Amino acid sequence: MVSHEVDLMVIGGIVLTADQDWNIYEPGEVAVDGGAIVGLGSREEVERAYRGRERIDASGKLVMPGLINAHTHAPMTLFRGIADDLPLETWLHEYIWPAEAKWLSPDFVRLGTQLAAAEMIRSGTVLFCDMYFFEDDIAEACQEAGLRVVVGGALVDFPNANYKTPKEGLQYSEDLLRKWSDDSLVVPSVQPHSPYAASSELMQQGKALADQYDAPYLLHVSETRSEVRESIEKYGRTPVGRLADLDVLSPSTVAIHGVHLTDEDIELLAQYETGVVHCPESQLKLASGLTPVPKLLEAGVKVGLGTDSAASNNDLDMFGEMATAARVHKMIAGDPTAMPARQALSMATLEAARVLGLDDRLGSLEVGKRGDIIILDLDAPHLVPMYNVTSHLVYAAHSSDVRTVIIDGRVVMRDRELLTLDEGEIFARAREIARQIVASWGSN
Amino acid sequence: MVSHEVDLMVIGGIVLTADQDWNIYEPGEVAVDGGAIVGLGSREEVERAYRGRERIDASGKLVMPGLINAHTHAPMTLFRGIADDLPLETWLHEYIWPAEAKWLSPDFVRLGTQLAAAEMIRSGTVLFCDMYFFEDDIAEACQEAGLRVVVGGALVDFPNANYKTPKEGLQYSEDLLRKWSDDSLVVPSVQPHSPYAASSELMQQGKALADQYDAPYLLHVSETRSEVRESIEKYGRTPVGRLADLDVLSPSTVAIHGVHLTDEDIELLAQYETGVVHCPESQLKLASGLTPVPKLLEAGVKVGLGTDSAASNNDLDMFGEMATAARVHKMIAGDPTAMPARQALSMATLEAARVLGLDDRLGSLEVGKRGDIIILDLDAPHLVPMYNVTSHLVYAAHSSDVRTVIIDGRVVMRDRELLTLDEGEIFARAREIARQIVASWGSN
Repeated sequence: MVSHEVDLMVIGGIVLTADQDWNIYEPGEVAVDGGAIVGLGSREEVERAYRGRERIDASGKLVMPGLINAHTHAPMTLFRGIADDLPLETWLHEYIWPAEAKWLSPDFVRLGTQLAAAEMIRSGTVLFCDMYFFEDDIAEACQEAGLRVVVGGALVDFPNANYKTPKEGLQYSEDLLRKWSDDSLVVPSVQPHSPYAASSELMQQGKALADQYDAPYLLHVSETRSEVRESIEKYGRTPVGRLADLDVLSPSTVAIHGVHLTDEDIELLAQYETGVVHCPESQLKLASGLTPVPKLLEAGVKVGLGTDSAASNNDLDMFGEMATAARVHKMIAGDPTAMPARQALSMATLEAARVLGLDDRLGSLEVGKRGDIIILDLDAPHLVPMYNVTSHLVYAAHSSDVRTVIIDGRVVMRDRELLTLDEGEIFARAREIARQIVASWGSN
Repeated sequence: MVSHEVDLMVIGGIVLTADQDWNIYEPGEVAVDGGAIVGLGSREEVERAYRGRERIDASGKLVMPGLINAHTHAPMTLFRGIADDLPLETWLHEYIWPAEAKWLSPDFVRLGTQLAAAEMIRSGTVLFCDMYFFEDDIAEACQEAGLRVVVGGALVDFPNANYKTPKEGLQYSEDLLRKWSDDSLVVPSVQPHSPYAASSELMQQGKALADQYDAPYLLHVSETRSEVRESIEKYGRTPVGRLADLDVLSPSTVAIHGVHLTDEDIELLAQYETGVVHCPESQLKLASGLTPVPKLLEAGVKVGLGTDSAASNNDLDMFGEMATAARVHKMIAGDPTAMPARQALSMATLEAARVLGLDDRLGSLEVGKRGDIIILDLDAPHLVPMYNVTSHLVYAAHSSDVRTVIIDGRVVMRDRELLTLDEGEIFARAREIARQIVASWGSN
């Protein structure tokens, strides 16, 4: 038997596929060619069938699918910790919105995305789903960084730095869809901000556009009690009920947050096969309430995890989100068997991919899927000894244990060295922007 | 003016003292001599007064007091993740207790402590308060590691690997008090396990012993609902009420967990100036409920943070505990201004020292206090930019950002290199023990 030459082999280590059957190969091996996984299994078997032009030794390490951050606003890394421990309204109205009004620009967004990309790659995230302004610049920054992204320009009724009218906003979204539909790393989407910041018409036009391009459609839904109360006062319906009436719920629709949901809301989400993104650390910190994940899962609703922005979190660390989700839902349920480790891990991998409609090619290590692979060091005191690899990953591993990151078959971080981003320059520029922001407060 | 020569200078960087007034020096400098802080302030000022035989450059870094883990069972690192996502009773009765019955020995405890020490030093913890068996071996292991510790042999009514009778248990505690009372790193204490595992007599005898040696007195109190219910059924009193009746509440008494507390319990703790240790991640994971920290603080009760053991956490990372505490109590209170960053940080530094009665010499960077100092790297994407150093520490910093650790004036980790422990050997031995434990399951 002649072995087949491929681009890259990841050799040895514990290979946690995080597939539907939770297959684990120990020692395992992964063969990647043309950006896709072509061989996967026990070391011996794969070694016999393939030889790699590049070989990464993962002996004694953990090999797993890269993590998926299903909701963030990447450029807001530049506002990281700008205003903590404040009521949501003060935070938003006195700090975030004024800062955005003053500072938002394509350059700002690009720099913030590069900073976010460095943090995400370092912490094992291989794909994030973003909603912000100037998303074309975000797509370009991610392409340069070798990081996978779902981009969606926030659609809002009011004028902003990115566009003046909802019509221009839709045009911007359509331009994104046209430009990026065939990219290997960038997935364009349509993202109305929320049922309170986008009109019914804008949400419906956005949905038509998303469907036309077969793209994901995401929006913030029922994040706060007051949002739900105001929706009922104004429209006689909860936000989810209203979205159903507007005919924008579907399998490709994603409700971000979905914190304050009625039983009827949950039934609607299940019925329309609409996914939900839970952002545990941001939801805790803003005290807005928590997505009722166990109830949603029980109803058959897809749930992925996200960090939300670094302005309300304050990091973009999916290891932290998994651990927090697994712990906090046990407490809420009063049941230590609630939200077991596998569930938390799958919400950051395969389930997150399902929510975004990308599970046919992302979210687990399987032959035919894209080569999005991370390798974790296990030689650290907090990871010794190891009785169960999955619970270890969720309850003990830290983002800093990620050593090597491969996205679409390309090594973007090797032994903690970032290969696609100049951190020194990014940090210097981010610090300078922060200095200017702080200086501008004094002059108000 | 002639400058005074001292053992060690930490030069430059942002010096966050975490003292009562939250003094920050930027750039600052710390002079340490004979294990104590002798100079502290602006770089210029301290530089003029002192010169160091050893100089550590902290420019562009963060200098702060080492963290204090107010409650753990260090050797249980060897059971890290042995059984997750299980009901408390199953976890305890089917996994932890049988494993302890089979494996506990002085060697086991020493190895587990070395593993814990490596993890704690790496994550910036300079002092932990421990309750377990064979605590003399724990004290020796910590002394060798250069890590500060409060040791307390668990006092229980039943025979165990450490001693056969409560009387022998008390003798073991008294031996600890005699041997370690004048040590520079080890603080001996008396620690009845809990009001349900130690008789009234044993708790009272332990308290008398603690008072005789002016030592801290700690015990698990009101951790679960069933514990409180059974106490009321058996004694007609809540555990805290019973401890008050037994006259063992005092300023040097510490109630570990204190989850299910009545208003009267909280009044009693305040009245007797008894401290409480909150272990957020363990309490969440075991779904036992959460210490009502904001209520306790409002009543004037001292509260420190702890990790609890690695068997229920699953790490010993105080950065994680601070962040989790700050986030989760906001959600519980439904108020994003609850548990601000300073409060979370002080529960892991000065307030933790107060709970343990050690705040006269530990818990903050102040002239006259011991030289327990950690230095954090700020050149990481998740720490850029920085608007507020305290909230940054709590919401964005990770344990892996700790680069250098100084305890009692001695450098025990320099640029992430552990100087007092042989991790390779510790990991190999810990993995071998875990292998034997797993193999023994098969033979049952």
